Amino acid sequence: MPEKHFRVLKTSNGARAGELNTAHGKVLTPVFMPVGSQATVRTLTPGDIKEIGFNMVLANTYHLYLRPGIDTVKSLGGLHKFMAWDGGMLTDSGGYQVFSLSPFCKITDEGAKFRSHIDGSEHFLTPELAVQYQEALGADVIMVLDECSAYGDSQEKVQEAMERTHRWAERCLKAHQNSEQSLYAIVQGGIFPELREKSAEYLTGLDFPGYAIGGLSVGEPKDITLEILGQTTMLLPENKPRYLMGVGAPEDIIEGVVRGIDIFDCALPTRVARNGALFTRRGRINIRRAAYSRIDRPIDPECDCYTCRTFTTAYLSHLFRSEELLGLRLASIHNLRFISNLMKDIRNAILNGTFDSFREEFLAEYKTTNERTRLDQKGKWLRGRSKRE
Amino acid sequence: MPEKHFRVLKTSNGARAGELNTAHGKVLTPVFMPVGSQATVRTLTPGDIKEIGFNMVLANTYHLYLRPGIDTVKSLGGLHKFMAWDGGMLTDSGGYQVFSLSPFCKITDEGAKFRSHIDGSEHFLTPELAVQYQEALGADVIMVLDECSAYGDSQEKVQEAMERTHRWAERCLKAHQNSEQSLYAIVQGGIFPELREKSAEYLTGLDFPGYAIGGLSVGEPKDITLEILGQTTMLLPENKPRYLMGVGAPEDIIEGVVRGIDIFDCALPTRVARNGALFTRRGRINIRRAAYSRIDRPIDPECDCYTCRTFTTAYLSHLFRSEELLGLRLASIHNLRFISNLMKDIRNAILNGTFDSFREEFLAEYKTTNERTRLDQKGKWLRGRSKRE
Repeated sequence: MPEKHFRVLKTSNGARAGELNTAHGKVLTPVFMPVGSQATVRTLTPGDIKEIGFNMVLANTYHLYLRPGIDTVKSLGGLHKFMAWDGGMLTDSGGYQVFSLSPFCKITDEGAKFRSHIDGSEHFLTPELAVQYQEALGADVIMVLDECSAYGDSQEKVQEAMERTHRWAERCLKAHQNSEQSLYAIVQGGIFPELREKSAEYLTGLDFPGYAIGGLSVGEPKDITLEILGQTTMLLPENKPRYLMGVGAPEDIIEGVVRGIDIFDCALPTRVARNGALFTRRGRINIRRAAYSRIDRPIDPECDCYTCRTFTTAYLSHLFRSEELLGLRLASIHNLRFISNLMKDIRNAILNGTFDSFREEFLAEYKTTNERTRLDQKGKWLRGRSKRE
Repeated sequence: MPEKHFRVLKTSNGARAGELNTAHGKVLTPVFMPVGSQATVRTLTPGDIKEIGFNMVLANTYHLYLRPGIDTVKSLGGLHKFMAWDGGMLTDSGGYQVFSLSPFCKITDEGAKFRSHIDGSEHFLTPELAVQYQEALGADVIMVLDECSAYGDSQEKVQEAMERTHRWAERCLKAHQNSEQSLYAIVQGGIFPELREKSAEYLTGLDFPGYAIGGLSVGEPKDITLEILGQTTMLLPENKPRYLMGVGAPEDIIEGVVRGIDIFDCALPTRVARNGALFTRRGRINIRRAAYSRIDRPIDPECDCYTCRTFTTAYLSHLFRSEELLGLRLASIHNLRFISNLMKDIRNAILNGTFDSFREEFLAEYKTTNERTRLDQKGKWLRGRSKRE
């Protein structure tokens, strides 16, 4: 791994502004990574992603292992070259997808036996293979194989999964050979503070260059998420980056940052965009509503994204009502630019020592439930576990 | 209409290089117009279209009348502003769509009664309304309402439709008020040379600024298409532009140009792109074929499109096999760039007096059926009438 993988430049009442050094450039934190599970951030080119303001993306070992295959990507020069992305990149180990996407999954200490969600074929993933695959893909940050508990699992069951996660983390560390890549551990322990403490203690003892917090936002009430999150980050070393997996709603990012998180990823901004839910400072709006079909101004007149600079709300409404593919792309650009601007604002506020008031103002204005519940109820987008695609 | 709407700069054995002057800039001919029926060329932004090399597009009165509605587009400043397109634009009158897309259509001399293919609602379109709607949309070139015969109709039936088309053309001319827009007539007459002759004679007598040839490529054998096409263009005035509606396969464009056509439109290049059929100088390839999944070079190493400059065949193959939306966009860019380059090559060849040899070489290399028949048989794309979306 490169020298000084991470450093904190400024803290503001728990929130941190820093920088992550990768073999593909410097990444300012707090950072949000758009999700490109299948080596593409849906509807967007690498140039679009850069223009929107991101220089680190996430891709998924599980998806790429199944299709086009690790060997194929490797023979084509690795994942950066394959998807024509020259910025920072993190790959998830596939552990979460094995549990959440596979129609069948059996965990033993040796590894996870699962079936492909594409063709039903049987596969076996071990900690060693997860590292080997991620080394072949070549991302800048790679993740240990972990076992993620479900909300509602007994403390005993969660503890068992946590302890296996610890043993797997050690095996990943031992298997890891590529010093250009930073291997992060994943703290588990569900909603049980004493397990989170044990997990953090155990894993920080192994001296990983970064720590992720897994097993949150998997269906538990939000106050519990935030409590466990706050408790867990306090247990992690201050000089290492902290990554909250699968969280990316604007209000959740803010709550993560104030609890000391540096790295986020989530498919939510692009997925809800494709369902017509667009971020504004006052909350999400549903562009499919008839009320928007004649509005002769951008979605958000203050937004500087390509979509808002070029098209009216009425045009976007027309594209969605006509099921035109361009609508999905324009909405994705808008939502990602909203998150990109949010991350910039958050970082500046931390650097200026004004993060607390920024957070207060943002959350007062941003209506989490605005036009959202109705869409959610329609089942237009998935919740909980599947937030981490 | 602007002064000197059209002039021929050079002819080469029937093929013509010229220029079309519109209120939104000069358009070099022969020109191909990408199809944006619903005020969007599927998956692409106006910036993409320009970058690919097009400065005139087609939109559809039928689609826009039904959704979002003519009044809505007008109240938003017209179609150019609505879709953020500042180049040349032609709108089709809706006549063809009323016959081909509507689940019900009854023609009388007064006009066409039809049902919406979206919600089944009943509507009535007259020549006067077709012009009024197109004036409200504000394209640079607008089309008369015509009645298009089907291949297989009796000569009597085709003649009846042709004569109605003539009466409607006169009514459109009378209703047309906006001098910024050029109203083109449409020659009908099916596959009957004597009817084509009558139609051309009648309509040229009315002195329209441009003439379209309708009712071809609607299912008849290709040798008949070409014979009727060649005969019909010979009957049209040399100083007026000639527009072959709904034709856009590379080999068909070449055969149109050599018969004196100046303007083409077709959804085919983008529609087949979305099905994974990509143009190369040797014919179409089907990117979904397993053979392409590890090819570490662009679709066409000599192609200068964004897709070929940026991504490998293997990556595009992966996107299609993974059903990723970016694949549809990258394939559309490639196919449209192919057509854009083809039009440039055609024009240069005409200007240099080498069009005959260019045509011969192109058609010798371009295998019309290469990997195409198999796809066609699968019903992956529509043929005949529906070429003109």
